[in-house]
Amino acid sequence: MNTTDHPAPAETTPEQARALFRKGLRRPTTGYSAGYAQANLIAVPREQAFDMLLFAQRNPKSCPVLGVLEAGQHSSELLTGGDIRTDIPAYRVYKNGELVAEPDHVIDVWREDLVAFLIGCSFTFEAPLLEAGLPVAHIDQGTNVPMYRTDRQCQSAGTLSGPLVVSMRPFPPESIATAVRITSRYPGVHGAPVHIGAPEGLGISDLQAPDFGSPVHIPEGWIPVFWACGVTPQAAVMQSSPELAISHAPGHMLITDLPNSQLQVP
Amino acid sequence: MNTTDHPAPAETTPEQARALFRKGLRRPTTGYSAGYAQANLIAVPREQAFDMLLFAQRNPKSCPVLGVLEAGQHSSELLTGGDIRTDIPAYRVYKNGELVAEPDHVIDVWREDLVAFLIGCSFTFEAPLLEAGLPVAHIDQGTNVPMYRTDRQCQSAGTLSGPLVVSMRPFPPESIATAVRITSRYPGVHGAPVHIGAPEGLGISDLQAPDFGSPVHIPEGWIPVFWACGVTPQAAVMQSSPELAISHAPGHMLITDLPNSQLQVP
Repeated sequence: MNTTDHPAPAETTPEQARALFRKGLRRPTTGYSAGYAQANLIAVPREQAFDMLLFAQRNPKSCPVLGVLEAGQHSSELLTGGDIRTDIPAYRVYKNGELVAEPDHVIDVWREDLVAFLIGCSFTFEAPLLEAGLPVAHIDQGTNVPMYRTDRQCQSAGTLSGPLVVSMRPFPPESIATAVRITSRYPGVHGAPVHIGAPEGLGISDLQAPDFGSPVHIPEGWIPVFWACGVTPQAAVMQSSPELAISHAPGHMLITDLPNSQLQVP
Repeated sequence: MNTTDHPAPAETTPEQARALFRKGLRRPTTGYSAGYAQANLIAVPREQAFDMLLFAQRNPKSCPVLGVLEAGQHSSELLTGGDIRTDIPAYRVYKNGELVAEPDHVIDVWREDLVAFLIGCSFTFEAPLLEAGLPVAHIDQGTNVPMYRTDRQCQSAGTLSGPLVVSMRPFPPESIATAVRITSRYPGVHGAPVHIGAPEGLGISDLQAPDFGSPVHIPEGWIPVFWACGVTPQAAVMQSSPELAISHAPGHMLITDLPNSQLQVP
């Protein structure tokens, strides 16, 4: 593989994408490696691992688990030949719930007692949305997806609690049913929307001021559609303050080897 | 509620069914409380809880988690007003992987550090199969479903490993596609079959000698259809020998308050 070729993001294989990010490319992964699942990362010490897995089990819309790397593992069949500590474009390091760094790799802060959870990401179903002829605003506008902390509380698990985080994509009213139908078929990457229209119903007062990612321009008459987001575990970490947690930076995902087709139901 | 009325099993509400079993009725729960999910129980000490939850996450066909009662909890919204230690018709107690008792309740052996996992059970989708006009042989024959230890290994998780266990229902060849279609819609209670026909392909040499439950008569020309089974965690416990584990007795399930409709996709 010659990474200087810079294939178009959608045509990049997962292996090529991970190699690019490993070498330092730092950018949101929306639009990368069409047809392959993207994943959120949340890694916590082994003592908090049961609470995190239970939090995921109790909040499956926001935390669909694609895989778990047990303590001491740095790779798995989801990232063959890869390394969870280097292959994501940007990371976040939380100490006692405080964001303390946003590095390009986490080799130096990783600990062998960390258990890494890979959570499905809605970037995965953007390729099927595009294939169906639907517009994806943040891709058209060349920016990261906007994400918002809502006023809905997740179900807590042991020491972990926090609000639901959502991502938002606006659609023309006549396209929303199609967007629901398509994304419903991918429960492993958040599935159907949790809320359509009326952002105030989620406690979101200003769509142009997202808590994570970037604002997108909403064309006149389009409706904001909200999906549960894999940044939710990060919000739980901020609220629940485990000693150490390492995540991806929002929108900067792990590109996995898992084909979308394996996530599709029924 | 007057338990002496003995309503027909299918018409029994989940609350009535749990009360009957709490009072000592001991029988398989197939056919009970049509329209409500039935659940397998596996409870292990807190130190093994992460491994068990991870085992379930890695083997979702056999171990779809409907709920988890954390250490110290005896009830949840899945069994409102109930008690996980008394409301199942028959239990199994495993010490170091050995089956040591099969009591009617486990009040005396329960420990406050036990974490109880409720795993979906295929009895749940028998009501929709019957509604679709399909025969369910073990119900027609008034017996428990036959279950078999296969030669397929589950994905291991930490200290836990073991074989896939399957339940078997025979169907006329022309009905199998319908059985697949209906059960596919219930991934939370094992979903689509894992194997159709050819029991030797699962390492099953004699259908009339199940490892759990009871044999069923297979009418001439009918084909055995196999679903992943929630007894799989018990097989893992037998192989992996945690200090203590408490489960339901195969076929003797917890009747939950969860309506089937909430499990149906899409």
